[in-house]
Amino acid sequence: MRPMAQPKFIIPAEVLSGETADIYFLRYVDILRAEGVNPIVTMEVFPSREGVLCGMEEVQELLRQALPPQRKVWALAEGEWMRRKEVALRITAPAQSFGVYETAYLGMLSHSSGWATAARECVEAAGDIPIISFGARHIHPRVVAIMDYAATVGGCASASSVVGARLAGVPASGTMPHALVICLGDTVRATAAFDKHMPPEVPRISLVDTFKDEAEESLRVAQALGKRLQGVRLDTPAERGRVTPELVKEVRARLDQGGFPWVQIVVSGGIDPERIRLFKESGAPVDAYGVGSYISGARPIDFTADLHEVEGRPVAKRGRIPGQTPNPRLKRVL
Amino acid sequence: MRPMAQPKFIIPAEVLSGETADIYFLRYVDILRAEGVNPIVTMEVFPSREGVLCGMEEVQELLRQALPPQRKVWALAEGEWMRRKEVALRITAPAQSFGVYETAYLGMLSHSSGWATAARECVEAAGDIPIISFGARHIHPRVVAIMDYAATVGGCASASSVVGARLAGVPASGTMPHALVICLGDTVRATAAFDKHMPPEVPRISLVDTFKDEAEESLRVAQALGKRLQGVRLDTPAERGRVTPELVKEVRARLDQGGFPWVQIVVSGGIDPERIRLFKESGAPVDAYGVGSYISGARPIDFTADLHEVEGRPVAKRGRIPGQTPNPRLKRVL
Amino acid sequence: MRPMAQPKFIIPAEVLSGETADIYFLRYVDILRAEGVNPIVTMEVFPSREGVLCGMEEVQELLRQALPPQRKVWALAEGEWMRRKEVALRITAPAQSFGVYETAYLGMLSHSSGWATAARECVEAAGDIPIISFGARHIHPRVVAIMDYAATVGGCASASSVVGARLAGVPASGTMPHALVICLGDTVRATAAFDKHMPPEVPRISLVDTFKDEAEESLRVAQALGKRLQGVRLDTPAERGRVTPELVKEVRARLDQGGFPWVQIVVSGGIDPERIRLFKESGAPVDAYGVGSYISGARPIDFTADLHEVEGRPVAKRGRIPGQTPNPRLKRVL
Amino acid sequence: MRPMAQPKFIIPAEVLSGETADIYFLRYVDILRAEGVNPIVTMEVFPSREGVLCGMEEVQELLRQALPPQRKVWALAEGEWMRRKEVALRITAPAQSFGVYETAYLGMLSHSSGWATAARECVEAAGDIPIISFGARHIHPRVVAIMDYAATVGGCASASSVVGARLAGVPASGTMPHALVICLGDTVRATAAFDKHMPPEVPRISLVDTFKDEAEESLRVAQALGKRLQGVRLDTPAERGRVTPELVKEVRARLDQGGFPWVQIVVSGGIDPERIRLFKESGAPVDAYGVGSYISGARPIDFTADLHEVEGRPVAKRGRIPGQTPNPRLKRVL
Amino acid sequence: MRPMAQPKFIIPAEVLSGETADIYFLRYVDILRAEGVNPIVTMEVFPSREGVLCGMEEVQELLRQALPPQRKVWALAEGEWMRRKEVALRITAPAQSFGVYETAYLGMLSHSSGWATAARECVEAAGDIPIISFGARHIHPRVVAIMDYAATVGGCASASSVVGARLAGVPASGTMPHALVICLGDTVRATAAFDKHMPPEVPRISLVDTFKDEAEESLRVAQALGKRLQGVRLDTPAERGRVTPELVKEVRARLDQGGFPWVQIVVSGGIDPERIRLFKESGAPVDAYGVGSYISGARPIDFTADLHEVEGRPVAKRGRIPGQTPNPRLKRVL
Amino acid sequence: MRPMAQPKFIIPAEVLSGETADIYFLRYVDILRAEGVNPIVTMEVFPSREGVLCGMEEVQELLRQALPPQRKVWALAEGEWMRRKEVALRITAPAQSFGVYETAYLGMLSHSSGWATAARECVEAAGDIPIISFGARHIHPRVVAIMDYAATVGGCASASSVVGARLAGVPASGTMPHALVICLGDTVRATAAFDKHMPPEVPRISLVDTFKDEAEESLRVAQALGKRLQGVRLDTPAERGRVTPELVKEVRARLDQGGFPWVQIVVSGGIDPERIRLFKESGAPVDAYGVGSYISGARPIDFTADLHEVEGRPVAKRGRIPGQTPNPRLKRVL
Repeated sequence: MRPMAQPKFIIPAEVLSGETADIYFLRYVDILRAEGVNPIVTMEVFPSREGVLCGMEEVQELLRQALPPQRKVWALAEGEWMRRKEVALRITAPAQSFGVYETAYLGMLSHSSGWATAARECVEAAGDIPIISFGARHIHPRVVAIMDYAATVGGCASASSVVGARLAGVPASGTMPHALVICLGDTVRATAAFDKHMPPEVPRISLVDTFKDEAEESLRVAQALGKRLQGVRLDTPAERGRVTPELVKEVRARLDQGGFPWVQIVVSGGIDPERIRLFKESGAPVDAYGVGSYISGARPIDFTADLHEVEGRPVAKRGRIPGQTPNPRLKRVL
Repeated sequence: MRPMAQPKFIIPAEVLSGETADIYFLRYVDILRAEGVNPIVTMEVFPSREGVLCGMEEVQELLRQALPPQRKVWALAEGEWMRRKEVALRITAPAQSFGVYETAYLGMLSHSSGWATAARECVEAAGDIPIISFGARHIHPRVVAIMDYAATVGGCASASSVVGARLAGVPASGTMPHALVICLGDTVRATAAFDKHMPPEVPRISLVDTFKDEAEESLRVAQALGKRLQGVRLDTPAERGRVTPELVKEVRARLDQGGFPWVQIVVSGGIDPERIRLFKESGAPVDAYGVGSYISGARPIDFTADLHEVEGRPVAKRGRIPGQTPNPRLKRVL
Repeated sequence: MRPMAQPKFIIPAEVLSGETADIYFLRYVDILRAEGVNPIVTMEVFPSREGVLCGMEEVQELLRQALPPQRKVWALAEGEWMRRKEVALRITAPAQSFGVYETAYLGMLSHSSGWATAARECVEAAGDIPIISFGARHIHPRVVAIMDYAATVGGCASASSVVGARLAGVPASGTMPHALVICLGDTVRATAAFDKHMPPEVPRISLVDTFKDEAEESLRVAQALGKRLQGVRLDTPAERGRVTPELVKEVRARLDQGGFPWVQIVVSGGIDPERIRLFKESGAPVDAYGVGSYISGARPIDFTADLHEVEGRPVAKRGRIPGQTPNPRLKRVL
Repeated sequence: MRPMAQPKFIIPAEVLSGETADIYFLRYVDILRAEGVNPIVTMEVFPSREGVLCGMEEVQELLRQALPPQRKVWALAEGEWMRRKEVALRITAPAQSFGVYETAYLGMLSHSSGWATAARECVEAAGDIPIISFGARHIHPRVVAIMDYAATVGGCASASSVVGARLAGVPASGTMPHALVICLGDTVRATAAFDKHMPPEVPRISLVDTFKDEAEESLRVAQALGKRLQGVRLDTPAERGRVTPELVKEVRARLDQGGFPWVQIVVSGGIDPERIRLFKESGAPVDAYGVGSYISGARPIDFTADLHEVEGRPVAKRGRIPGQTPNPRLKRVL
Repeated sequence: MRPMAQPKFIIPAEVLSGETADIYFLRYVDILRAEGVNPIVTMEVFPSREGVLCGMEEVQELLRQALPPQRKVWALAEGEWMRRKEVALRITAPAQSFGVYETAYLGMLSHSSGWATAARECVEAAGDIPIISFGARHIHPRVVAIMDYAATVGGCASASSVVGARLAGVPASGTMPHALVICLGDTVRATAAFDKHMPPEVPRISLVDTFKDEAEESLRVAQALGKRLQGVRLDTPAERGRVTPELVKEVRARLDQGGFPWVQIVVSGGIDPERIRLFKESGAPVDAYGVGSYISGARPIDFTADLHEVEGRPVAKRGRIPGQTPNPRLKRVL
Repeated sequence: MRPMAQPKFIIPAEVLSGETADIYFLRYVDILRAEGVNPIVTMEVFPSREGVLCGMEEVQELLRQALPPQRKVWALAEGEWMRRKEVALRITAPAQSFGVYETAYLGMLSHSSGWATAARECVEAAGDIPIISFGARHIHPRVVAIMDYAATVGGCASASSVVGARLAGVPASGTMPHALVICLGDTVRATAAFDKHMPPEVPRISLVDTFKDEAEESLRVAQALGKRLQGVRLDTPAERGRVTPELVKEVRARLDQGGFPWVQIVVSGGIDPERIRLFKESGAPVDAYGVGSYISGARPIDFTADLHEVEGRPVAKRGRIPGQTPNPRLKRVL
């Protein structure tokens, strides 16, 4: 899907050292080593529910660094739709060589696929209208880059975090915070300052719900900036009824009647696929959506890893079928 | 609650540099600077739903490094129960000094409080029976340490990851993976190897659902290890009906009848508060629970930050009440 | 409850003539007359569900004009709470004398009791906070007076229609329409004109949601009128999220911070008992509610009339019990 | 739809005087007058939900009497199906000339459209089988004529009230009350008296549930009246299980077996669209339905009026779109 | 509870021969015999849900005939309330001696306890008002006696079948069928014939819903039989709305007004605990209920039998706990 | 459907004597006799809900023995699908000749049709996979033969009881009880003993859930018996998660991988149509189902008998239509 020139993903030292693993995997490898047992085993990895596979490129980077040369790895590609319980990754390698990484590769796939799948749901609901990943503020900063990257794998057009946009290779996107308007005391003044100091390639999108009614404020900033104003962002708080389709239509009509048909409308605040469909069905002329916690707070898609062969012999724990599970969609990647 | 001698939390460079922030916060500070505006402002931060506050120690470390000396910071303590919309953090400082960190401190609080609250629910359901955080495999390894730490703030007795247990100051806990049993071909042999090679302080807990019926296998390992066996772990897969209260009772009865009353029973696999209550109400003699994705996959508790004062004057965006919100539970921390 | 000096209710000629009746009642009396049959009968009237009895004074006026002197009429009093199927009215009189009025007296009781009961539900939800009946616009003008009267029997403090307030003996109550603000172009100008031209006893209550955000507009009119402003009315349309408890609290806080603690807040727009309870539980400082279609569009409480005696003999149609139904709460009224 | 020769609707004096209006409309006009402001304004009126438009002819009569010559009025026609929020009426006239009538014209449309729409639902459920409006007894006699008229606009074939049938230009329809049967002591005697004294054009329809089982009584009256009996009405009370499809089928079969195939069956008592569909689906041979409170107790369809132009300039309150709303279905009526 | 003089229950030959058993039990005993294996075993029997234990006397008769002298049998008593999964029967005897009877004793307990429990539910709902078991017509005649006996163990006062009443030691109870009324052409004539030909100890209870309205017919038979009429039975079919509380009240009132206060009212037709509670809560003066398919069509309570000891050693299949299950409520019965 | 050579059904003496009847039918015939009334009547019998008609052959045997020569009987055939309220049986005969049998023939039809219909639901869910009736243990042994016969009329391939299989003309079917395995101490030993002592035509199907995991035990018995093993039965108790589709697939896979593709899998334990569909949709390779209480505990389908003619004249009780009800599907059988 996208070329992998240099290592896009940096695997942290504490992952490579096994310190982020469940301790019993460290003990497992210690015991095998003490027993002098190191069979070639085949591990299969599958998701607990369907969704967009994400995290696989990062996993491959981990395995590339960790596994010895005689390894064989098959996988579905980053961004593919995977079915429930479909084998998405198969590793054949000496047991000791990758035992400690089970926690890490399952976690990378689970968390990233959860985010990508939630993003995909929004993108499918929105059709042609672009989605911006706005959810960095709801998750720990250590995974902001990974989350925003996963959101773009799921189809988001851009992301708000600097690190995320960089990893995903898209422009970082954003407008202005309420804090700017409050510190400068007026939306028009804040927008004019933004216009004055920002480089020309940064789109002028004014946040219009801070002090005044959105329709009134939209006209004020449009009159002040004229053709330089690219859009307005509606982020009405729940206490004022959130952004509704009717509000979007009204702001659109008043902007058009005021002579500002080029000014776009960006909608944010509690957006999810259901609300996107509501906007769409009501015909509200939204130009872009900012989606926050629906994507960044999405539940991970749990992945499971099972041994299916030991030294070429089919084997499995109770509840699993011994031997390799056929899946023609898998491609050899290592 | 716990003393803060050295910095327990290491703030990554890309957080301190503002690169993990939403880009509009970087622009906001640039514009203020360009305009020569840098008022002392008061920011208030509150959660969208009630729960266990977590992440506050890490946030204080961030603010300690970031804010200039004239700052004032009030906060609730790590681990406190917070009400919906209660102010949990109040910062008074120059606007330019902490504008770029809004994404980071909200994210730290949101993600950590989500995990701690889910852990608390399990702990309350379990009463005196200890809970082990087993969910590292469902989330990205970059946040495994934070998640396991948060789980212990919520009340978990221990955690499975090395980094998480270290951060939380508890012993890392775990038994053995199915992979060990499969590689060694038999549960009794795997348990004996574990017993032979592990240091004496590591509890001998055998995983008994890999190849044989749990009741049969429990007796086999008990007969093999005798007094050295501390416990058995039941992790029956969904395909075999998961662990049920009846299974626990039966294994207990068969162990007791076989002369092994000291052997404890650890239960894992899809455990959540509802199932813990089910075990409790049915009187199943569980000695410890391992809880995975219910904690690690918990939805973050979204936090919101709002400016309430600029240079001492009450101000607020629409939907908020200007001025400081009284909360006698806040303590000055910086 | 209230003295009945002059006829408060004017019975229209077409009611007295029987023309508003179901035609079969006219035929019924014609046939009795042609057959020379005119027994003394006892009719009992009961409601299909519990509620506030209303319309009984009007019914008594009708019966007073219609019945011959040997009549006997027992009734519950206007405004009493009646139980489901409780006898609320009993008439003993010659069959021919009141046969044609069954449609009319049932209709008066049904419609009026429906309105009074809905009003009572609002009043009980609101506790000490007064309710104004605002629903004239949802029903035919021919019954506006009756509806507003019934609303006050149910406990409303005042009503918006001139005829209704007059019949009920309460002051007509209202603020200003959006049309006034729109015609004068600005809320402050409209409020000032209202203040200039209205007699001093008319309360100055400004409608503040027409052009600007309610919080901003409330402060503008308060600054313009000062002590002469009695209140503001919030009537936010559904397209802007309706009036919420949070909006009321915020407007209150901003008015208080602005130095206008005497300015009251009147809330209208889709108000019903459930929303009143929501405001109350959230602690929103509402000073009065305007309730429209919940009262005026209330479903009538159907009443039924049955013959229970003919010439003193117990009789009844199938499904009813012959003879007078004991009800010690009935009082002789005619 | 139907020609408007003379004024079909008499507008009461208290409507024309504005006394039935909300008092704030009177004040609004007083203030405009005192300020010397009387712009030409355009008011648009729309319903809150879809339905059958009714009351428009009465509104036009009101506007014809009230508005000055330079008025322009566009409207949908009486009886048309209107969509939710579709503009059904547009008035362009001097503000002072019609400001006090907003309460009245909204109320006429709301109440009448509610009744007509409920009637339409019954008519659509019944298909070819005629519906008689029987609900006069559930509403105040002042609006009986309007309600029965609206029911026929909704499709009812006839109505029970004299005034309603006259206004609608249909025959008043009805059978006999239970009181007639009870006063005369026997259904056969009552039916014979009805037959003896009523003019020949009045259909002989006997009410057969008063004293005896409906099947038995139907045969008794059929045997007594023979060919002169047009039908029987089943009005079984809830205490006896109401009229059921099985009862209708059985009465039909017994009448046919007894040699009375011409005797029709009229069904009444708690009839609504759902029960009409139940009768239809079960194949019960009903010849006509009498529908009461489902129509007369129907909730009004709230209408709203908004100013959209002042002196030709687009304007609107928040939540509405300024300027005239295009609707090609509107016709100029004044 | 009741003395067991002679065998109350006759065990059919095909039960004693094992022919009604599942064939694998016959094979099981054959194999044990061929292998020469006949251990003393302990079997425990428990129900799948709580209820009234019934069938135990019949089971004891079976075991008395089948088991050799060295048997030991413990049981709960006929009619006791048993908890879910409580051991209700324990048999210690040679395996070959009772292996073929497992199907039979489980079936007796399951079917009888199901009936008795359903009867108990009706009895508890009815309080002091007697219940007659009327359900023989819904089950195969081979088990009518057993069912009616079980109904009385559950608390029914009498039963309609001759064989059931005899087994239970209660009078057979019933009134007259619709067929009698139809063959004799009139309810009064049928009741008079009943009165003329039946012995004096048979209560005169007339079935009054065949041809005429129940209220009318009740008065007709009361007038005809006077003091000799003990009661009327209302069995109104679903097509006429079933018996309702209102109908019972009305018939009671009309009987009392007619001077027949001694005439009782028996209610039947689709009676179940929910409807009994409905009658009770509405205050309908019912004197007895006839209950049919709610009792006779009740779902059996499945019982399970498990081996818990072989030659005194605790043993059990997976899912059960080896050894005898303590239950102090068990009594030695054989 | 199947030829009726000799009487397949033996009517017990207490049925023929009328002792299993409701006592009022005995009184009814006594009164007719005492009155000298014995009209030729026509009785019609219909079910309260749709289903598979069963019991009709037994009813015909009863009527054949009971009715005098001038009888006429029409009926639907055993096993036909009957619609709700369709006439399934019509008897024309002297009233006294069959009055006492109403309880018996209704009961035979009700109970048998209930069982057959439940069996049909399982058979339709299972498609080509055979169903074995395993429910004898849940019902009284007196009706085991009738139930197993009805199950085969509903489509079951075989039944577990000796008497039921004989009546139905199918082989009795079954494997081995847990008791055999427990008495012999090991599943392999029990299976070998079964194989040694049973005649060759009895299929060798081993019960594999007693002591060990089903997958392990299946392989052990397959290795012991080899080609002589026809199948394994999975009957996992609820305490171990019941039989799941995944378990069946896994046992199948392990048997195939072990070289035993001919070994079939029989599934039992709480099986009903819903679970059969679940197995089918998941693709689990089940070879036969054993169904217990879903069939044997099925609710009877109540039948009702009504007189429709007396001496050729149409007549009926209230709620029924007099005269014969046309049903061209009825065939003359006596």
